[in-house]
Amino acid sequence: MVRDTQIARFPSLPLDSGVTLANVDVAYETYGELNAQRNNAILIGHAFSGDAHAAGHGKDDGAPGWWDSMIGPGKAFDTDRYFVFCTNVLGGCRGSTGPGSINPETDRPYGMSFPVVTIGDMVRLQKKLVDHLGIERLLAVAGGSMGAMQALEWAVSYPDSLACAIPIAGTARHSAQQIAFNEVGRQAIMADPDWNQGNYYGKTRPARGMSVARMVGHITYMSDESMREKFGRRLRDQDQFEVESYLRYRGSQFVDRFDANSYLYITKAMDYFDLTSGRGTLARAFEQVKSRFLVISFTSDWLYPSYQSVEVVRALRSRNCDVAYCELPSNYGHDAFLVEVGEQTELVRGFLASTHRGRK
Amino acid sequence: MVRDTQIARFPSLPLDSGVTLANVDVAYETYGELNAQRNNAILIGHAFSGDAHAAGHGKDDGAPGWWDSMIGPGKAFDTDRYFVFCTNVLGGCRGSTGPGSINPETDRPYGMSFPVVTIGDMVRLQKKLVDHLGIERLLAVAGGSMGAMQALEWAVSYPDSLACAIPIAGTARHSAQQIAFNEVGRQAIMADPDWNQGNYYGKTRPARGMSVARMVGHITYMSDESMREKFGRRLRDQDQFEVESYLRYRGSQFVDRFDANSYLYITKAMDYFDLTSGRGTLARAFEQVKSRFLVISFTSDWLYPSYQSVEVVRALRSRNCDVAYCELPSNYGHDAFLVEVGEQTELVRGFLASTHRGRK
Repeated sequence: MVRDTQIARFPSLPLDSGVTLANVDVAYETYGELNAQRNNAILIGHAFSGDAHAAGHGKDDGAPGWWDSMIGPGKAFDTDRYFVFCTNVLGGCRGSTGPGSINPETDRPYGMSFPVVTIGDMVRLQKKLVDHLGIERLLAVAGGSMGAMQALEWAVSYPDSLACAIPIAGTARHSAQQIAFNEVGRQAIMADPDWNQGNYYGKTRPARGMSVARMVGHITYMSDESMREKFGRRLRDQDQFEVESYLRYRGSQFVDRFDANSYLYITKAMDYFDLTSGRGTLARAFEQVKSRFLVISFTSDWLYPSYQSVEVVRALRSRNCDVAYCELPSNYGHDAFLVEVGEQTELVRGFLASTHRGRK
Repeated sequence: MVRDTQIARFPSLPLDSGVTLANVDVAYETYGELNAQRNNAILIGHAFSGDAHAAGHGKDDGAPGWWDSMIGPGKAFDTDRYFVFCTNVLGGCRGSTGPGSINPETDRPYGMSFPVVTIGDMVRLQKKLVDHLGIERLLAVAGGSMGAMQALEWAVSYPDSLACAIPIAGTARHSAQQIAFNEVGRQAIMADPDWNQGNYYGKTRPARGMSVARMVGHITYMSDESMREKFGRRLRDQDQFEVESYLRYRGSQFVDRFDANSYLYITKAMDYFDLTSGRGTLARAFEQVKSRFLVISFTSDWLYPSYQSVEVVRALRSRNCDVAYCELPSNYGHDAFLVEVGEQTELVRGFLASTHRGRK
């Protein structure tokens, strides 16, 4: 399954900040076919550093999508039955409009003049694409980590536009610890002189800051156990532990595929995300929700611990929403949503099938 | 209780690396009086960023010592009964010889030409001071975090020189995750152009790198719960969370009181520390041990989780050592060893008293 990323452009997008963004691109990929009733469409939301290339093999480099183990013929998101698509988020750097895009007013990259974006804004842009594709009501919105935030935001903001939401390893709002880890990454980037207040396009990129930021990220994505199993205290050479060289390698790689300003904007969007904001309680946020929910978390995920999923489930139940919750056993930490394919597949496949049957 | 840091100088110190260091200073403070039998001396080992000023009020700034709640008249380490002293570790930057000290061969600061130091080297220097003070056998060696490593190293390296060891919130060897967090701090410092390969003395210090390194550290010292209780999602101003400004403040403060090269050397010493090294198992490392042990850990400490203390306890028990273990309930994470005074005091006081009685 070879897939190429497509771009849709919209003349304007109103943002939560009050600013209206002009000429907004959204990059997306599609897998499978939209049926005649247009009721088999599933939107996948990516995690912080993901992109629209969720499945199949990239047209240029042949690289598999970030959730290729879950999306495809006969897989959890079965492309023989469903029309699956994934967008790069607003503020991103993989085709959708973000701080690295050209500001039509100045003909130069936005940099830090890019407006603040929220998870709500990201979802608003996705909704434009859904309308553009002629889909009135999605079968599902699903995703892990920041993708889970998007699924929850969809259910709250567009209750009539989806039949079910599948938030995996996510939360309705970041804890102080999650904000703190993101802030370390931001400070590492902004401490790099090459960041230059965000004006590094066409110049040297803030590679050292990005590398440190990514190293912190990787530690939080794994678990104490999975790091022990993968690296232990093994030395790579005389005075360097394997875990050190692995993290440095992953950090340096990241610089080539991600934009530092997108790092700043997207992590801020995650930190600001708070479904209780302006509503008092999470239960009240779910007052108008009409979709079904499948909520999944993982035992060893200490970045998005199960209690955050339980908080969502409890609020949904208090509003009599149709919600299934599963905490899956895993040693892989937050990465589990990308790695633990077997049990996730069973859960997702059954949940999607019963939701789809209910719509026929 | 006003205390001034004293310095003892030794002409040479052989290191584990094979190098011999000349003119080695050790900074130390003492509290209470050594008795006539010289059997009431307790050595306190400090954590990574600590120093010799463990108790009382500093002569210059009046600042309380880092364990003042635990050391003093009537406190856990009761200075009415015991002679308590604390040294700044080898490689440090608070009076003891370290990378910021003047190399007598070049008359310039060592910088990165300072030899690699180990926890074993730190303890060897402490042993010189103990001999210098005319103490044949310590009543106890106690400390939290890296201080716990020193207590364990003492028990293994100088089994005849201490009656008991009190390792708190420590480990016999760093996990991959602990190494990884230290490596992030080191990379953040070395990514700062002002670090300049360690040659920044008399010039601009690598303040930005140090600040990021310290921010990561602070997150790991607290718990998810304690961060939630202290900061939650409260905003400090319109677009800044309280936890962000707190971490940035603590990061910037750190630059003024700690040397970046000491950060690199001391974290490496912690990462290399491994009591099983060359001995196969931890139990074998404890083969010659003669001291009693009081091992303490804390429920919410995810940086030095209880399982690491349990590993030490199990190995000691397998060699029929006299060991008491307590996992104390706390929400404060790794910081608990500094904060949870009440229960620690009860445990330490009773354990010291019974050890002291046994020696009379």
